[in-house]
Amino acid sequence: MKNKVGRDLPPQIGTRKIRGYRGAFAIKPIPTKASLPTRCMYPGESKLCSSLDDAIKKSGLCNGGTISFHHHLRNGDRVINRVIDRIAKMGIRDICLVPSALFPVHKPLIDHIKKGVITQIQGSLNGPLGAFISQGKKLEEPVVLRSHGGRARAIAAGEVTIDVAFIAAPIADDYGNCNGSLGDSAFGAMGFPIVDSLYAHTVVIITDNLQPYPVTPISIPQTRVDYVVCIDSIGDPQRIKTGTMEITRSPARLLMAKNVVRLLDESGVLRDGFSFQAGAGGTSLAVTKFLHDHMKKKNITGGFAMGGITGYVVNMLEDGSINRILDAQSFDLSAVESIRNNPFHQEVSHIMFGDPHTGGCVVNRQDACFLGATEVDLDFNVNVNTHSDGVLLHGIGGHQDAAAGSDITVILAPLLRGRVPVIREKVTTVTTPGDTVDVIATEYGMAINPLRDDIIKRVKGKLPIRDITDLYKFAQGMTGTPRKVEFTDDIVAVIEYRDGTVLDTVRKVKKG
Amino acid sequence: MKNKVGRDLPPQIGTRKIRGYRGAFAIKPIPTKASLPTRCMYPGESKLCSSLDDAIKKSGLCNGGTISFHHHLRNGDRVINRVIDRIAKMGIRDICLVPSALFPVHKPLIDHIKKGVITQIQGSLNGPLGAFISQGKKLEEPVVLRSHGGRARAIAAGEVTIDVAFIAAPIADDYGNCNGSLGDSAFGAMGFPIVDSLYAHTVVIITDNLQPYPVTPISIPQTRVDYVVCIDSIGDPQRIKTGTMEITRSPARLLMAKNVVRLLDESGVLRDGFSFQAGAGGTSLAVTKFLHDHMKKKNITGGFAMGGITGYVVNMLEDGSINRILDAQSFDLSAVESIRNNPFHQEVSHIMFGDPHTGGCVVNRQDACFLGATEVDLDFNVNVNTHSDGVLLHGIGGHQDAAAGSDITVILAPLLRGRVPVIREKVTTVTTPGDTVDVIATEYGMAINPLRDDIIKRVKGKLPIRDITDLYKFAQGMTGTPRKVEFTDDIVAVIEYRDGTVLDTVRKVKKG
Repeated sequence: MKNKVGRDLPPQIGTRKIRGYRGAFAIKPIPTKASLPTRCMYPGESKLCSSLDDAIKKSGLCNGGTISFHHHLRNGDRVINRVIDRIAKMGIRDICLVPSALFPVHKPLIDHIKKGVITQIQGSLNGPLGAFISQGKKLEEPVVLRSHGGRARAIAAGEVTIDVAFIAAPIADDYGNCNGSLGDSAFGAMGFPIVDSLYAHTVVIITDNLQPYPVTPISIPQTRVDYVVCIDSIGDPQRIKTGTMEITRSPARLLMAKNVVRLLDESGVLRDGFSFQAGAGGTSLAVTKFLHDHMKKKNITGGFAMGGITGYVVNMLEDGSINRILDAQSFDLSAVESIRNNPFHQEVSHIMFGDPHTGGCVVNRQDACFLGATEVDLDFNVNVNTHSDGVLLHGIGGHQDAAAGSDITVILAPLLRGRVPVIREKVTTVTTPGDTVDVIATEYGMAINPLRDDIIKRVKGKLPIRDITDLYKFAQGMTGTPRKVEFTDDIVAVIEYRDGTVLDTVRKVKKG
Repeated sequence: MKNKVGRDLPPQIGTRKIRGYRGAFAIKPIPTKASLPTRCMYPGESKLCSSLDDAIKKSGLCNGGTISFHHHLRNGDRVINRVIDRIAKMGIRDICLVPSALFPVHKPLIDHIKKGVITQIQGSLNGPLGAFISQGKKLEEPVVLRSHGGRARAIAAGEVTIDVAFIAAPIADDYGNCNGSLGDSAFGAMGFPIVDSLYAHTVVIITDNLQPYPVTPISIPQTRVDYVVCIDSIGDPQRIKTGTMEITRSPARLLMAKNVVRLLDESGVLRDGFSFQAGAGGTSLAVTKFLHDHMKKKNITGGFAMGGITGYVVNMLEDGSINRILDAQSFDLSAVESIRNNPFHQEVSHIMFGDPHTGGCVVNRQDACFLGATEVDLDFNVNVNTHSDGVLLHGIGGHQDAAAGSDITVILAPLLRGRVPVIREKVTTVTTPGDTVDVIATEYGMAINPLRDDIIKRVKGKLPIRDITDLYKFAQGMTGTPRKVEFTDDIVAVIEYRDGTVLDTVRKVKKG
């Protein structure tokens, strides 16, 4: 069957029956979510475990179990590898791993996959694990990639059942009250594991900073926690920020960022109350910076900025250019400091950020968002998962959520990456459907989705607007037609849309 | 059948099959809670309603529906009467009312009961509504009284299914994010409706202070809200505090309060980290005050105080005598101001306060609590619901929860009220079972539950300890045997224990 972005999908992949993508808001959810587990702890009982092994044992985890982790410490995380190492040492096998995301630091997990300790993964893969998966079917079921909002939805809907959630916290008390913003390993907002703490059958808090009861503020309350264990270090928050999180220095990309701000201005959304989501990519940061300059100059007071939050957004809150920060994931230490100290920097869960099957998520209220891409295509579909060599290297992040919710979704992409054109006839992998994407901004001009006649009318003649096909041909003229990647038939990953339907699959790359 | 506090219960009351009380921690809960309803709101949709009628209409409420309210505004509440008036005007009948509590201000509801608009009540009744119910079976089913923790448990367990929760908030945005501590009608902590917002099929926020999106801090998030309606006033927070919330001036009761502090000191719990719950009754406030003096003098830094929070407890936080306040319900305007401004004054839900079937509630961590009583008996059972004339006049509050969780539960009670002895052979109504009560403190000495041999050993000879039977006889000697109240067989209310079993029933009073 072909889904609404034209991808051919088999009726079943592994053990999973496939429902194809039907449109961003086409799905009506089932009327009830999964049941919350009942915990029961009476006075005098203790949650404290003497070691990770003790915690794993008490959690009841056994062969075939499903366990989850968050990635707030990103490439500085020390918890996932350690827990899986201990699980392996204890002889537990056939684990389904449900991380919010994995990073290059988690490369040692490849060994555990090879040995059958991990046999399924449902979660984002960034870097070496994705590349490994792209080489062939090492897992029992294809990896399932979901957006941040989609992960929250899938857990709440009972499509993913977590036996044990291991939640790293830089501060916790012996009853499990914890937050992400205090302690030496503080990583800021703790948006990801909120949904895990609600639905997982067993919740284990792993901290390196056990403090007297009660720890406040409370991001995850004691009522949802079964066990607490203290280890020497949960990770290195200095490594949350990666090299890509620096403002671009490329004059062409800076101009592109300026044009995006002009487009927003001409579109009429840049007024008091303007609210947006900015990522942490170099050009996205430049847009944030220029937005800030523009708003100060024009005396515009924005509503909120949603993040991944960086210091650039913190600056806007601090000088009154925006009223609030809504933060589900802090992207640098200046964001961590701000959420700790500024009452207008509000933590939110990824349920609130982007779960479409709730009473309304934050992305619904965004006037604009600025997102990246590895590829875009003539239908405005966006790929952020695979590179043009077909290799799975990135998760979905909040991409689908922000695009679906925001009034104006801007994709920031260079026309070429090296000798590789970014605009394709068809993207290798559909991460985000074109009907939720409004503007493709390149350093050679911007293409506006024909669905957004309203924006086209407002900016025509005032900005370098080009037809997407023109930009496509222009790039091809410079590089020639790019070599087609060859895939085998083996499906190694499923790209789920935030509503639980399937957008696309990732196949094993044929060796050249 | 007889339950564990010796009360004879029929196997069925109304439509409800009865499980009798078996001991404070005898019940193992079912492994899953009720399902959370799935909401679904896509971009561009609005939650704002033009009027209460519009909100009630959109909520889908119809005949036979169940609706809930909170009582944070206590006797200053203006929302419950107005909503029920509108429901009645719209011709909706046969409503099951699930308030956290009703107060004298809600006397007009009697009319709606008489007319069949309200045919069931599950919630606390304080004052005229209780007296009305005691006069006979006006409702289709007996009223169900639950503790604060028990109410949260029953809703979460699916024993009470709420169709529409109407939640008054002194500040909210048009997506329903709200808190209790900002705005002219601010009432402080918003602990009661958290469970309603999770489980009710439809959630309506009623505010008198609509502010730009997003309102922070967020006590109830937008994801759980369906509709928002703005009215002129939700109530008068000046009327949260009632006359009973003044420190006692009676020299005998002040001495009793001092002796309680001495008892805690001798028992060895009054050390760094000491944590407690104090109510707002006159003697309880005196205990708080003397505790504070003692802790300052001895340089003791307490852990937390749980409330019902008053200014007396706020003072302890402010001068460092305790590290945290955990607040589910603010009892005066000084508590409201503190929760707004002091980051160590932490809001908690009544799930976290006292739901026994969670990963551990706050009461489990209390070293002591100081509670009131209308009657106590030779088995240390406590009555706070009915007066000695048999009339239902009070809810359970957090009484059962605090008693079950706290290490030392102290009941503060005068030996006599007027000419009526407080210590009975058997209490008229068992609100809190004697096996969770440790000390009965009267102005004529303290009785310690024989189960607490450890306390008896520590304080014997140092404090005026008397056998409960001696105190009973001493009071009877002054007043003579009190006249026995006569009841009919009609059960007008069920006293549920926090675990869902039944402790006792309240019967219709025979007219004298």
